[in-house]
Amino acid sequence: MVKVVLIGTGNVAKFLFDVFSEHPQISLVQVVGRKLEALNYFKEKTAVTQDYRSLKDADIYILAVKDEAILAVSQELMLQDRLLVHTSGSISMEALPENARRGVFYPLQTFSGVPIKNKENIPFCVEAENEEDYTFLEDLAKCISNSVHRVSSEKRKQLHLAAVFANNFTNHMYFLASDICAEHEVPFELLKPLIRETYEKIMHQTPLDAQTGPARRNDLKTLQEHLLLLKDNKQKKVYTTLSESIQESYGEKL
Amino acid sequence: MVKVVLIGTGNVAKFLFDVFSEHPQISLVQVVGRKLEALNYFKEKTAVTQDYRSLKDADIYILAVKDEAILAVSQELMLQDRLLVHTSGSISMEALPENARRGVFYPLQTFSGVPIKNKENIPFCVEAENEEDYTFLEDLAKCISNSVHRVSSEKRKQLHLAAVFANNFTNHMYFLASDICAEHEVPFELLKPLIRETYEKIMHQTPLDAQTGPARRNDLKTLQEHLLLLKDNKQKKVYTTLSESIQESYGEKL
Repeated sequence: MVKVVLIGTGNVAKFLFDVFSEHPQISLVQVVGRKLEALNYFKEKTAVTQDYRSLKDADIYILAVKDEAILAVSQELMLQDRLLVHTSGSISMEALPENARRGVFYPLQTFSGVPIKNKENIPFCVEAENEEDYTFLEDLAKCISNSVHRVSSEKRKQLHLAAVFANNFTNHMYFLASDICAEHEVPFELLKPLIRETYEKIMHQTPLDAQTGPARRNDLKTLQEHLLLLKDNKQKKVYTTLSESIQESYGEKL
Repeated sequence: MVKVVLIGTGNVAKFLFDVFSEHPQISLVQVVGRKLEALNYFKEKTAVTQDYRSLKDADIYILAVKDEAILAVSQELMLQDRLLVHTSGSISMEALPENARRGVFYPLQTFSGVPIKNKENIPFCVEAENEEDYTFLEDLAKCISNSVHRVSSEKRKQLHLAAVFANNFTNHMYFLASDICAEHEVPFELLKPLIRETYEKIMHQTPLDAQTGPARRNDLKTLQEHLLLLKDNKQKKVYTTLSESIQESYGEKL
């Protein structure tokens, strides 16, 4: 039986709590959080505390707090020689205090409280200072995911940056599209089958091959017409920057 | 029985051919195309011709050719008083010759030869010069789609422009993400569950509410770190432009 203490009460902590709770070999012995109210989600199923110094004995302490809180909280915990991991995409393993056995346990997904389908497919990027801890983390991740990867801090940061393009910027494209629809009183719903197909295509094709549209075809007439249709300067600037980036990408590759 | 002549042999023509062929009330009497080889796809199931002047008698003539060919091909057809529609998102109905009864029959989807799931959900944007033809087009579209909409040329152009953001630019975000992964030797596959979730979220949330990430949080430290991680000027410019656009979008709305 693996004993886990979770520090944090946000969406990542809730996700880990839920998937660990379903596994017979994992015992979630305690959840630690500053806010009493946020502990409500957990308190019927496990011990909870607001005191960072009253940690129960466990095989692993998982820090699932905001990036900007990792440094301060991890120092407060005083986990001498214990395995302490954070769950962030963009923070180095070395940001954790030296007196702990340090590691990273990063689920590459966006957690916003909405239930996620196919939770077992969420990739885990795992890292540890020593080999024994790495094996332990890998085994733990494999209990809840079929996609476990050894990724260094440096590569994890690049992956997190790529995720900003694939997730945050993609969602902003949906937003700008919905904005154009709203301005011209056409329902954004009409674009949803297209958005679905855009996603489905890259499950089978590379994004390089899947690219279509006026910038890809170097169709200067349509590019010009689209700029005339756009009235908003923000939309114009995004349109120009992305069209140029597409033209440059395919200019290089041809 | 509705008799249809299809002019064009590309992906849109193939899609329409396939869905019309499945419907018992629609008779696809002829496919017309310049290239002999491209007619192979159709010739076992219907009459084909390369001659734009040898059109069979039909209730509707559907022009499914490239945008830049619509003007020239439609003039060559000489369809006096016949119902002639094009299938383009960005061309006005008025671009068709005046001697025909003009209309638009635009399927809002990306067609690249890859089979499309849930074909019956593809939205059709329909327009016609006269009311009788409009009703005919609407009925025809409803035979093959459960999402049929009356959309003017002006609104259709805006919808097509919104589709560039939702489809072409979104795919370019996937491409830039895959580029970063390739540069740093991490598999792009790791981002696919995240890409799926990004798409799934806006099926239930508005893109405005679904937005996350450093630009949304106005997390200047991470924005700065990401710019340092990016070496390529094209990637840097896209990152800056989109982060500013997100900051501006939420600055306005807050």
